[in-house]
Amino acid sequence: MPFEVTILGSNSAIPAYGRNHTSQFVQVKNKRYLLDCGEATQIQMRRYGIKAQQLDAIFISHLHGDHYLGLVGLLSSLHLQGRTRELTLFGPMGLDDLITLQLKHSDTIFKYKLKFVRVDTEVSRVIHEDERTTVTTIPLSHRIPCCGFLIKEKPHRPRLNKDKLPDNLRLQDIALLKQGKDIVDENDNVVLKAREVLLPPKKSRSYAFCSDTKYLADLHKYFPKVDLMYHEATFLNEKELTASNTLHSTASQAAMVARDAKAGRLLLGHFSARYKDVRPFQEEARLTFPESYLAVEGKSFSIEH
Amino acid sequence: MPFEVTILGSNSAIPAYGRNHTSQFVQVKNKRYLLDCGEATQIQMRRYGIKAQQLDAIFISHLHGDHYLGLVGLLSSLHLQGRTRELTLFGPMGLDDLITLQLKHSDTIFKYKLKFVRVDTEVSRVIHEDERTTVTTIPLSHRIPCCGFLIKEKPHRPRLNKDKLPDNLRLQDIALLKQGKDIVDENDNVVLKAREVLLPPKKSRSYAFCSDTKYLADLHKYFPKVDLMYHEATFLNEKELTASNTLHSTASQAAMVARDAKAGRLLLGHFSARYKDVRPFQEEARLTFPESYLAVEGKSFSIEH
Repeated sequence: MPFEVTILGSNSAIPAYGRNHTSQFVQVKNKRYLLDCGEATQIQMRRYGIKAQQLDAIFISHLHGDHYLGLVGLLSSLHLQGRTRELTLFGPMGLDDLITLQLKHSDTIFKYKLKFVRVDTEVSRVIHEDERTTVTTIPLSHRIPCCGFLIKEKPHRPRLNKDKLPDNLRLQDIALLKQGKDIVDENDNVVLKAREVLLPPKKSRSYAFCSDTKYLADLHKYFPKVDLMYHEATFLNEKELTASNTLHSTASQAAMVARDAKAGRLLLGHFSARYKDVRPFQEEARLTFPESYLAVEGKSFSIEH
Repeated sequence: MPFEVTILGSNSAIPAYGRNHTSQFVQVKNKRYLLDCGEATQIQMRRYGIKAQQLDAIFISHLHGDHYLGLVGLLSSLHLQGRTRELTLFGPMGLDDLITLQLKHSDTIFKYKLKFVRVDTEVSRVIHEDERTTVTTIPLSHRIPCCGFLIKEKPHRPRLNKDKLPDNLRLQDIALLKQGKDIVDENDNVVLKAREVLLPPKKSRSYAFCSDTKYLADLHKYFPKVDLMYHEATFLNEKELTASNTLHSTASQAAMVARDAKAGRLLLGHFSARYKDVRPFQEEARLTFPESYLAVEGKSFSIEH
């Protein structure tokens, strides 16, 4: 089952050089999430063949325009295209008022229920849970309330080692074994031990999305050994003071967080419009964390088991 | 001096087939205006090499998202790029509240003055005037308050016919002649009649932008003999009932307005996403008004004297 992140926008405040505002599409098994929704996200989704109607939830990190100004347009298109299925929107205080005011002025009532969940950006808390995944907030430090999101598969069940299963096992026995229970005969004698036929469960995969933030030395503690993580890298290290003053990070700082988290891979994005060529971000980050990649438009990153 | 309209977006509610939401850039001599500002307008401006910082004023026809959702992003980029020059924004009641709320939540105060002028969409009135042009509202009929805009050059002065001017004319005499005054000698005898050396003034050029509206049989009265006009054409005639029900127009209806206005040329846009190929819009309109053209992304239309 897929666990894949597709980058829809990689630039910070001003779109430039074909780079769009922040948005990422995440498919985890049969669930589809959007992380942030900068201007033109719906256009980017069409460009990369992502069906917006299939979205299950949208998560907004903070209310700077480059992270949410595509939201009302996207939500309106879902309405116009006939969506009736409920959509959950997670975001900081105020996002609901912004949407409500825009719908009031456009005299629009959506055909589907838009369920808004206000997120406390200052704590790490599970805000969303379905049968297979959880989403947890990651407190960040930016000029306005802002959080990231950790998407994590729930623990998988142990798998049966088919090579070790006796023939003609009854369906109810298979169910018991999957639950880790031994098979007993009518006299309660164990005839098959679960641990002898079980393989360890597949690893639970995870993705951490760290939107706008200053460098936080302890940030890695929210996602130890995460498989894939995104951390903003608005500047190169040469502009570390600017990064600090604007509560943003450099590529080196993003790499330090990834290194300290013992992450699998790091994605870099939210590049300042001052940089035409963003390859130096990858080069700089790799000095600290070799598995660093550019999160540029249209790129997809799969997490394997 | 140029009078040129460049199309930044041609589609209606849902962006599709590479067609964006409504926005048009108009240069009239040294003034630069934006008419409507759908999502991704700032990206389109970059694509077509239009410098947003040079904008003198922005006009918003109504508060449906496909006509204004790119506004806050564009205004924010101007701020981030260091604009200090005042910018005037014309739009219906509520637009100022929408912007104010978004800036409040993003904790942003623009470095430049954004002067908001609330427009009464129900009357035809001069709302903007500078040394060379006037902009007048055109009342339209849509689901929410909506108006178009007529941009018109002020009357030009008569020109001197240089071939008929005597040699060694004094500068003050030239100034008098340009004002239509005869030249007299010290005895008050007329030595040169102004009407003998004046050419008629150049024609004042005009552009009418008719944003979302149902077909209005009398609409042409607001812009008789306009050189260039845009009229929405969301549907083909086969969907006339849908057009009527949604307070939109068909290509045929747009053509009837142009014909009745004795317009020079008609631009068609705001196409429904149900149409992949928009060439039939032009074909349909030309049956009624031969000088009909598609207002598609990146096309520029110049008005000559």
